[in-house]
Order: sequence, then structure tokens, then C-alpha cells
Amino acid sequence: MTAVATIIQSLKGSYGFDRAQIRTDLESLEHWGKDWTKHFAPAPSAIVFPKTTEQVQALVLLANEHHIVLTPSGGRTGLSAGAVAANGEIVVSMDKMNQIGTFYPADRLVEIEAGVVTEQLQQFAESHDLYYPVDFASAGSSQMGGNIGTNAGGIKVIRYGMTRQWIMGLTVVTGKGDILHLNRGMVKNATGYDLRHLFIGSEGTLGLVTHAQIKLERPPQDLTVMVLGMDNFSDVMNILSAFQAKIDLTAFEFFDSVAIDKLMAHGQVQEPFESRTKFYTLLEFEAPYEPIMDKAMAIFEDCMEQGWVVDGVMSQSIAQAQELWKLREYISETISVFTPYKNDVSVLITHVPAFINDIDHIVSSNYPDFEVCWFGHIGDGNLHLNILKPEAMSKDDFFAACQVVNQYVFETVQKYGGSVSAEHGVGMTKKPYLHYSRSETEIEYLKEIKKVFDPNNIMNRGKIFDM
Amino acid sequence: MTAVATIIQSLKGSYGFDRAQIRTDLESLEHWGKDWTKHFAPAPSAIVFPKTTEQVQALVLLANEHHIVLTPSGGRTGLSAGAVAANGEIVVSMDKMNQIGTFYPADRLVEIEAGVVTEQLQQFAESHDLYYPVDFASAGSSQMGGNIGTNAGGIKVIRYGMTRQWIMGLTVVTGKGDILHLNRGMVKNATGYDLRHLFIGSEGTLGLVTHAQIKLERPPQDLTVMVLGMDNFSDVMNILSAFQAKIDLTAFEFFDSVAIDKLMAHGQVQEPFESRTKFYTLLEFEAPYEPIMDKAMAIFEDCMEQGWVVDGVMSQSIAQAQELWKLREYISETISVFTPYKNDVSVLITHVPAFINDIDHIVSSNYPDFEVCWFGHIGDGNLHLNILKPEAMSKDDFFAACQVVNQYVFETVQKYGGSVSAEHGVGMTKKPYLHYSRSETEIEYLKEIKKVFDPNNIMNRGKIFDM
Repeated sequence: MTAVATIIQSLKGSYGFDRAQIRTDLESLEHWGKDWTKHFAPAPSAIVFPKTTEQVQALVLLANEHHIVLTPSGGRTGLSAGAVAANGEIVVSMDKMNQIGTFYPADRLVEIEAGVVTEQLQQFAESHDLYYPVDFASAGSSQMGGNIGTNAGGIKVIRYGMTRQWIMGLTVVTGKGDILHLNRGMVKNATGYDLRHLFIGSEGTLGLVTHAQIKLERPPQDLTVMVLGMDNFSDVMNILSAFQAKIDLTAFEFFDSVAIDKLMAHGQVQEPFESRTKFYTLLEFEAPYEPIMDKAMAIFEDCMEQGWVVDGVMSQSIAQAQELWKLREYISETISVFTPYKNDVSVLITHVPAFINDIDHIVSSNYPDFEVCWFGHIGDGNLHLNILKPEAMSKDDFFAACQVVNQYVFETVQKYGGSVSAEHGVGMTKKPYLHYSRSETEIEYLKEIKKVFDPNNIMNRGKIFDM
Repeated sequence: MTAVATIIQSLKGSYGFDRAQIRTDLESLEHWGKDWTKHFAPAPSAIVFPKTTEQVQALVLLANEHHIVLTPSGGRTGLSAGAVAANGEIVVSMDKMNQIGTFYPADRLVEIEAGVVTEQLQQFAESHDLYYPVDFASAGSSQMGGNIGTNAGGIKVIRYGMTRQWIMGLTVVTGKGDILHLNRGMVKNATGYDLRHLFIGSEGTLGLVTHAQIKLERPPQDLTVMVLGMDNFSDVMNILSAFQAKIDLTAFEFFDSVAIDKLMAHGQVQEPFESRTKFYTLLEFEAPYEPIMDKAMAIFEDCMEQGWVVDGVMSQSIAQAQELWKLREYISETISVFTPYKNDVSVLITHVPAFINDIDHIVSSNYPDFEVCWFGHIGDGNLHLNILKPEAMSKDDFFAACQVVNQYVFETVQKYGGSVSAEHGVGMTKKPYLHYSRSETEIEYLKEIKKVFDPNNIMNRGKIFDM
């Protein structure tokens, strides 16, 4: 009997796993063995669906005993192959741990299982007149456990921070099989190293998150959206500063004329205003009081007078605000037909203009046929660089060329002290480039920490770094 | 020659330390060898004042070579003896690394040395029309390095979070002597374990922080203060919920009638209103727009109608707001003549009423002569429990009795899943009680992590836990 078969037998025999909790059919292996990345073929040995922390612990102990690697699996919407099982792993799907537990109104705190879907949590918050503010395109299928594993960001980070900021407690099973209850929901707890923060963003390489305590927030009121067009990138920075000095922004997003060209050609969204400009920002803020609208208008007019803004529009209703958001939200889908080669990088906001300039120069001088589409969460210094495939070029040639560009991109990231993965994690796709953002010495410390929690390297082996 | 003498000789000879950077006179040993705690007699071997990260590194490498323990030292305002050197350690004072470095306006980010005083950073922020929001009584002398080491909290946590939330990057020298640049100021950086968060709150036991990158915020506008009096503790919770649903609070503080009795007897502050009630809350919020004041008044009137609030007052000017704040700020100083035995604990806000009730019962049934004064940051579930010494009792008898009470207090903390040190750290004074908040298994992981960064246990040995 193979090690995996032995583990499955034990799970069924001694640990109460029923038939629906273990799948080994090909379709399931294919389905649960991968995420949204397409670079690696899924090849897991089995898919296991635990229902309790104790069942997860049993599985981890068996995996240690039989030297089988476990791949944690959430909504499988990852973009770095962090949840891909390509080497005979047992996938640990959290699909059956998707319950929302105790809610503490006075603390605005809710306990959830790791398989709760982001949108499910958002809706729960809404039903209690509260708000879970971490939001992004895959909220309808991404699971909270995965969000915690990658410290997911998204479109509201400028105001509400990353996933990290909302995680008040975690229950984890370490790679050694210990159950730890980390921080237990407290705002203030100065009792030694905060292991909760070590697990957040660890991509399942230290252990498995089974439960979390999540802080909720009051809902935003009367969100208003502005879309502004400019012709010089440096003015984007001026506009950010001008608004931020006087208004609490809930979003400050950016896209370029390539993005708007594609959006208009695709025909699903309306042009925000008559002028076509080189750069666009979408900014959002709460405006429950008339003076805030007046202030926003005054800043807008000042930006026009300064010559920073060519044209602009402000939403007058919720429907209009949603319509303007589509300009930003539909970009990914719209450019997907051009087989974009994506990178998700970040630098200090201060360095963004020089960084974009450098990359544009690199691409245009080396690959004059390549079209570059920029968009991103510029209020956080987070840029999504998308290189679009020329129609005449084969996919293979295109990706091979992009691999070369990658090198230049990450050298430029390093030049500005930036991050090779701002919010998508490292997984397998960014693993070869980790050293552009973390020193070799630092990576050695990461590996030593991994050994503390997972000495047999059974937890998501081969992700972030190789041991 | 002793090991310490050898180290000093090397520092002077090979690493450019001048005479003013090393002190061994008794007065200096006494002065830099302790913090605000008084339980341990200072007994360091030398005080060293590095000026650069490289000098810190040289010292750490020498300390490893000669097996000498280093005690990091900031503003020495700690309340858990985390910076006390009681066993021949070399104290590493950051007093000469107190410069504010590069400021990045677009990022609202500033680089500082670890010895920068909290108030110095607050004033720097102010000079750029910005705000550093972590504030507490010792801001005039506490250093940022120490705030980072304990993840300092204070009076604005309900709105702005702990120190952790404002630290965008750290330069550290690990216990092994490696220099690491952690996160380098980025908002978004998903490239593996975030070691920055491991160092925050580690009380100098993993290494020394030498530089930090600090996020700044827009300053609060038109802060308005309300002080409300109630007779039932559960109404404090109702009031918190009522306000928090509609207004973004920047503070929600609490104190009891014992505190106000002492304040009034002391005579430095005015009674907030005629009625004397059992409990008081001080709440603060921004009110730049008239409708917010109207809203606050409406909530206040509703709380009166519900019978939750007996009496209340709202500030009509900055001066009045400051005057009301004194009610909360002067408590510590006012009760200091009663030789208070202090505990700084936290539980979920939901559990606060039951927790206070349990402790009051324990103290009154075991020590009917003891007076208990409660105050704290109740919006964060953080309570300062102060047991006041009966005049007739000797200090020794009192502290001995309090040690017994401690046991009950921490058992109650554990019963509610709380923290034995909410914001003061563990240091030496809370070390015997750590297991009430962290499981034995978890503490084992803390020790293993310590070994990764500081295998020879030279960094602040004997703090948080013993190895």
C-alpha cells in the first residue's frame, strides 16, 4: 500500500473522515490541484476535506509520519501557484470548514472557519450593519484562509490596510502538528512574539490556518467616486498629495490610456469624459456631509488650474459611482484576450514615476512591438504591469521574451528597493525572483523559521523557497 | 582582563567608539541600567552608546564571541523591567542614534533612528502638517526603538491601532550579528514571512532595532471630548456601542469613582459635572462638520433617555477638551501616593463587565481593606487594575498580599482568554505569568524562534522567558 493510501485508510478508520471527505478521482485531482495560474500541471495524490481542527491535526501528524507533503487549498484564486499541487501532494481543501461562528458585537469581532468565502464574510458583516473592508476581484470565490496565507490586499488598502490588519486571532495547526490559538481576538496583547503575524502571509508553509477572528468596521457612508484624466504621470502624484492632505481617500486607483483604449474597444463601459488622456486616476471617498463635496470640488478645480488635470468627472449617485468603478474593475477581464504577461510589483509611491519610466524605456527599447498596459493601486505604490502579446507572435515566443523582460523588471524593482510581489504572494511563480526583494541572509532566516514549525518540510513544500 | 574590558578595548580600538560612547562609572551604570520599574537593582557592566548600525553589529559580534549579554535601552520608561540590566550586562543605549532621516512626503513616510523620542517624532510630523498617532503618558521620554520593542499602545488605539500599524520598515541587527532591512517602507509586500512583525513586540530578545520607517497620518480635526457618568458598568458597554455605530471614536477611556475621588481630593482637576457617579467614560471624536456634533448630541440624549447616562458634558473649545482629558491623564500621578499595585490586562470588550465583576469580588472577599481603582482604554478591552495600599499596612506586607491577588487576577484573565500584559510587555515582571496567556506549546515555539535569531542567548537574556 502506498503512503497516501495508508494515510487515507487511517483517516477513515481512526479519525472519522467519511467518504465525501476524501477524493482521488481524476476530475477532483485536476479541479482541486490547481489555482488560477496555468504554468504548472496539477498532479496531487488525493484531496482531503477536513471538518475540524482536530481532523487537520490528525492529517498533519500522519503526513509527518509518512513523509507526504500537504498543500493547503482555499478558493484557488491565487496568481502565484501557491495552491498548486504538482508533485503528488495531498491537497487539504478547506471547502467543508466554511462556517461563520460566534459574533461579538461589542468587539465587532467574528469567529470564522478558514474556508469562509470573502464575500460570505462581507455579507455577514453587512447583515449586522458592519463592513469587512478587504475587497478585490476574486472576493466571490477566494477563501479567508487563502487571504490570510497571502495577506491579501486589493482596492481599499489605502484606507483599510491589508488582510493582516483585520485578523485579531488565528487557530493554526503547525507543520509539527501542534494546535496553537494565536492572540485570541485581542486588540492589545504584549506577551512576546506575535506568531499570528508570522502565519499571515506565510502561504501555508508553516502550518494550516483552521479558524480566524476577524475585526469588522462600520460601513462607509455615501461613497463618491471621481475619475480624473492627466497627460503627465508626475501629476498623478500631485493629485494624490492634494486630495490626501484634505480628504480621507478610500481608494486611489490608476490606469493608463492603453487600458482605456482596450476598454472602449470592448464596449462594456462608457468613456468617463470627452477628452482622451494618457493617464487616469479613480479616487473614492466618503461624503456624508455637504462640506466634503465642496472640498473635493475645490481641490479638483485647483488641480485643473494647476494644469495637472485635463478633464474629470464626479459621481452624483451610487449608480454613477458603480459605473465609474467599472473603468478600473473591467481592465483585467478586458485585456485577458491579449494574453497579458502580468507582474504585480510595488515600490515607494515616491519612486513610482521613475520606476514606470524605467520599465517603459526597457520594454520599448528591447521589444518595440510590445504594448504595455499599466494599472494598479497607486495610492499604495502597487502597480500591475501587463505586457500584451502582439497578435502575430506565438504564445511560446512571447512568454520566452517576457521571461527576459522579467529579469530587467525585477532588477528595476531591486534598484528602487521594491517588492517583486506586492499582493499575490510568491508561491512557485515568483520563487526564482525572491532574492530581488529579500537578501540572501534574510532568506536564510526564513528557512530557519520554517524548520521551527515544519521540520520535515511537509507543509506546502516548494512554495516561497526551496529547502 | 575581563570579557567586558576586552570588548570595550576592541570597540575603542577597531570600531571607532570614542570615549563619550562608553561609560562605566557607577552613576551611569545606575542611571542607564534600569527603567521605571523598581523591583530589580541595576547592575550592568558598562553602558555603550553606538552611533551607527555597523557599530551595533560590531558590539553584537563581540558579545557573541565573549558570551556577554546585551540589554537594549531606549527611554527607559518601561513598566515590566524589559530594559533593566541586573546581571552584569552591557547596556546598549540608543541615546546617540536619535536623528530623523529622509522624509518621503508622497508616502507620508519618514526614516528615523531608534533613539528618536516619541514626542520628537510627533513634533516632526506636526511640522509637516502630519500626525504620529501613537500617544501615551511617557511620550516625552520614551524612544521609538522601545515603542517598537513593546508594540506600545496608549490612548488612541481604538482609532489608530498599536505602534505595529505605523512601522513600515525596520533595520535590525540580529542576535547573530546580521544586519537585516525588513520591508523597507512598503505598504504591500507579499514576499514571505514578514520578519518586521516578529521584531515588533520582541522586547529586544531577537536583536536590536537601529532604524525604522514610520508612516504618518493626517492630523485629526476639531477634536471634541465628552465625559459621561453612569452607575452601572454594563451601561458603559451600551454607550460604546451606541456611539461607535455612528461616530468614529478617537478615544474611549474609562475610570471609576475611586479614581475621581482621588482626583478631587488632589485638587488639580475640576469635577466634570455635579453628579458623582460610579463610572465615567471619556470619549473623543473629530467634529469638523456641524452634523457630527448634532449626531453626538442626539446619541447622548438617547443614552440619557435609556437611563444609561446619569450626567455628561461635552467640550466647547480646545481648552475645555484638554481640561476634560486631565481627568483621565492625571489618574496615574494622583494615585501614585497610594503605592498602587498595578496590572495591565486585556480581555475581549464583551467580557469586560464580567471580568471586572470577578476581580472586584476576589479583592473584596479576600482583602476587604484594599481599595481598587480601575481605569483604562476600555474601547480596546484594556484595563489598568490598581490596588491601593491601606495607609496602615507596610509596603512589604502589601506587596506580599498583592502577589497572592496576582495569582487570582491572572487565573481570571486566563478564564476569559485574556492577556496578562496588554501594552506593557513581559520583561521580567510578567515573565512568571506568561503561561496564563500563552500555552506551554506556544512558549516552546517562541524559544525556538529566539534560537534562530540569537543562538547564544546574548540578546536581553532573561526577558519574556528563560531559556
